[in-house]
Amino acid sequence: MRISELSRLSGVSVTTIKYYLREGLLPAGRQRSATQAEYDGHHLRRLRLIRALTGVRGLSVSTTREVLGALAEHTGDTHRLLGLALGSIGPFEDSAEDSTGRAEVDGLVEELGWDVHDSAPARVALAETLGSLRGLGVPLDRGALVPYARLAEHTAVLDLDQLDGIDDPLELAERALLLTVLLEPALMALRRMAQENESARRHGGGRP
Amino acid sequence: MRISELSRLSGVSVTTIKYYLREGLLPAGRQRSATQAEYDGHHLRRLRLIRALTGVRGLSVSTTREVLGALAEHTGDTHRLLGLALGSIGPFEDSAEDSTGRAEVDGLVEELGWDVHDSAPARVALAETLGSLRGLGVPLDRGALVPYARLAEHTAVLDLDQLDGIDDPLELAERALLLTVLLEPALMALRRMAQENESARRHGGGRP
Repeated sequence: MRISELSRLSGVSVTTIKYYLREGLLPAGRQRSATQAEYDGHHLRRLRLIRALTGVRGLSVSTTREVLGALAEHTGDTHRLLGLALGSIGPFEDSAEDSTGRAEVDGLVEELGWDVHDSAPARVALAETLGSLRGLGVPLDRGALVPYARLAEHTAVLDLDQLDGIDDPLELAERALLLTVLLEPALMALRRMAQENESARRHGGGRP
Repeated sequence: MRISELSRLSGVSVTTIKYYLREGLLPAGRQRSATQAEYDGHHLRRLRLIRALTGVRGLSVSTTREVLGALAEHTGDTHRLLGLALGSIGPFEDSAEDSTGRAEVDGLVEELGWDVHDSAPARVALAETLGSLRGLGVPLDRGALVPYARLAEHTAVLDLDQLDGIDDPLELAERALLLTVLLEPALMALRRMAQENESARRHGGGRP
């Protein structure tokens, strides 16, 4: 397909596509003439992924290039590929460390028996949140966290089930990334609605 | 306590506290002299709440004032109070409507048997996310969403359990808000770690 068709199908403007081509985020099309290149379904999938990374996840163009590069390097190792795609292994780094929160998180992961990389950014993210809650006077201890973690295990099974049967490693990584990044707001919306429903059940009396 | 002590305990600078006082987010202290006012635990709790709304949730000062005002008005009705605090009922509005997504969400809520207000912003948020996923070529149908929704029911029970035994209505609303807003990143971090663990279990072979 021509660049105009790629633009129509992806919803990304021709100008932006040319920018991604210049920045090396999108591989060049097959040159058909001096002024015309041919693009295919691979380019379309890659554009969707770039949009998810830059738009929904808010990554910069240079970080997106890093992530895409790392994905391309690890296509042979499904676990590592998924780790990168799901953001559980670098290149996302966070220097802010909360040692109290970090010790809590390490203890929690050990109690859960989870196989999680020591440098997983999610460990840092969780430690920071526990630190915020402590600072705001509503500390959450491990006993309160474990039931949430057990529910997260069930969620992760649903997540990984959705990737079953995808053989192409890049497609697998792309789909994992899209589902992880884009499902977050959906899961939070479901939680809000479930809270409202649970509140109605407990304090009830019909619709508010 | 004096404003300097309030600042120390809350971690909010005196300048910012004075700004909140001027903007009507924080009620005035009891005047002890022409230049000195006395603050108490109520002010401290209110400051924590303002920090959670403006900082973590990213609300503007004027929206925060609206939310706090609405909370104060509905202290007699626990369900409505929790609804406001948990963000399941206004004043958060979103004008962008995706009618396909909205019909999907309404159908889902009906299938689940949930008691959720028609104008709950979470309905709009979920509809938008479903629209994004469809646009990116990874549509999620109701069958895929229902198991996530059932897990959200369990999460909501844990959430509401944490509010048990709090009688003071404002404290209840504040705590509900803090736990909802601040737990979101923690739950997402748990999900990422659980995904990594589940990926290791399936595609395994020790640590990546």
